[in-house]
Amino acid sequence: MNHKENLVNIACIQMEPVFGDIPGNTRKSIELINQASNKGANIIVLPELCNSGYVFNSRIEALSLAEEIPSGPTVQSWIRVAKENDVYIVAGINEKEGDKLYNSAVLIGPEGYIGTYRKNHLWNEEKYYFEEGNLGFPVFETKYGKLGILVCYDIWFPEAFRVYAKHGVDLVCVATNWVPMAYQPKEEKRMAVHIAQANAHMNSVFVACADRVGVERGQPFIGSSVIVDSDGWCVTGPASYDEEELLLATCDLSKARRGKQKTKLNSIMDDRREEIYQVEQKIH
Amino acid sequence: MNHKENLVNIACIQMEPVFGDIPGNTRKSIELINQASNKGANIIVLPELCNSGYVFNSRIEALSLAEEIPSGPTVQSWIRVAKENDVYIVAGINEKEGDKLYNSAVLIGPEGYIGTYRKNHLWNEEKYYFEEGNLGFPVFETKYGKLGILVCYDIWFPEAFRVYAKHGVDLVCVATNWVPMAYQPKEEKRMAVHIAQANAHMNSVFVACADRVGVERGQPFIGSSVIVDSDGWCVTGPASYDEEELLLATCDLSKARRGKQKTKLNSIMDDRREEIYQVEQKIH
Repeated sequence: MNHKENLVNIACIQMEPVFGDIPGNTRKSIELINQASNKGANIIVLPELCNSGYVFNSRIEALSLAEEIPSGPTVQSWIRVAKENDVYIVAGINEKEGDKLYNSAVLIGPEGYIGTYRKNHLWNEEKYYFEEGNLGFPVFETKYGKLGILVCYDIWFPEAFRVYAKHGVDLVCVATNWVPMAYQPKEEKRMAVHIAQANAHMNSVFVACADRVGVERGQPFIGSSVIVDSDGWCVTGPASYDEEELLLATCDLSKARRGKQKTKLNSIMDDRREEIYQVEQKIH
Repeated sequence: MNHKENLVNIACIQMEPVFGDIPGNTRKSIELINQASNKGANIIVLPELCNSGYVFNSRIEALSLAEEIPSGPTVQSWIRVAKENDVYIVAGINEKEGDKLYNSAVLIGPEGYIGTYRKNHLWNEEKYYFEEGNLGFPVFETKYGKLGILVCYDIWFPEAFRVYAKHGVDLVCVATNWVPMAYQPKEEKRMAVHIAQANAHMNSVFVACADRVGVERGQPFIGSSVIVDSDGWCVTGPASYDEEELLLATCDLSKARRGKQKTKLNSIMDDRREEIYQVEQKIH
């Protein structure tokens, strides 16, 4: 098909943060951002809570490893490296606002800090430490198109992708710390990858997931970072379960917009029937 | 874990209807239902429009191949075979109500006709012939648990699974005529299978998809019938792309209910945040 392209190089950095070592994790993230940028990346996604680590033992500990956005040292470092490299960065960060904690991800662009997403669906013991996100699903304009952000368990909620798709998001960046399921068939990809693929396809959005690896305080993480196109196919990845890796893919984000029209008669957003999704059902 | 089981044998019949041959298709479906029942099936799912075929050339032709529910000959035959075999049948059928046409699926049990689902999301030229479903998402009680029904393109709408999950459905039966996508990576399962898996997992419901095979008036279909458990894993299938096949799996439907509680702190339905899914978003 003859069409205008909207090419962008998307990178997902699969890394292993060291619990509690904010300066070390920030240095490492900057090294990896520089590497990705040297390979041509325009938008670079990093894992959930990649500056602090994930497994907190107490609220006080979590708070001691949090920073304010955008004044905190990690964000300030990312602002510098984004400017130097002329890239966008989406990165998970332990955010404090006064004494409140949020499991957040920041978007930083070549011109500086753009905005924050706060995880809307908290997983397990995160509920002991963090507040639920209170910023909804913000849609961020960038020079490459419209970005949405989700964090980890958020992708289990197809409603989140629908909200973004309704508002024309081209790329959903997912900062994540996926943990293993009780049962994993050997021949299957991780369920998180199926979920990313299905939601990408059902909404015609690109989905770029950056996961961490390693075992922290007994909690293993599963890697499998992946960049999925708006048809739902893996462009690159899933990455390994346990190695630090850089995923990089050239994506034509214009596909996300064209793909919403599935046939002459089918637009996936127009085919939705809001009026029948809300009604209370009778049991027959 | 020590728990009460709720075992049921679910069958999906992957078959090739002959366009327009209602008596022949009905006979064949009954043969295959008998075979499935002889192997122990309790709930048997058949493809979309399995009595009439799919590719109509005109509305008049579609109407000439439709029947009223439950008085029509196909449904009456299915009622007899369900009674004889003490089974439930979910089967796609070309339904007329007066001069209106619906792409429907019937649920028939050992005691006779139970109810009808009318496809809510019409695909492509179906819009020329059929009315959109006007029965919502009916939840059917059976002796094995609560059943929901979807037809083909309906599974592209995660809202449909959410409605069923909210109302406690254990098993979603999908009568389908899946068609190929423009691009299919060789190493990947069909996207429809990813979608069935992801929706099963996100909602903790079993999903049993019976697809057709063959080429009809130039339109190929893709088989890949599959029975997915409430964790999202394929219990059996996906079946081949082009052969008639019987899929049969013993499923513990109690898993669907237990699985809604993912951790002590996470219930997938309670973790939903309805208040943030509907709001109009600002573009930042």
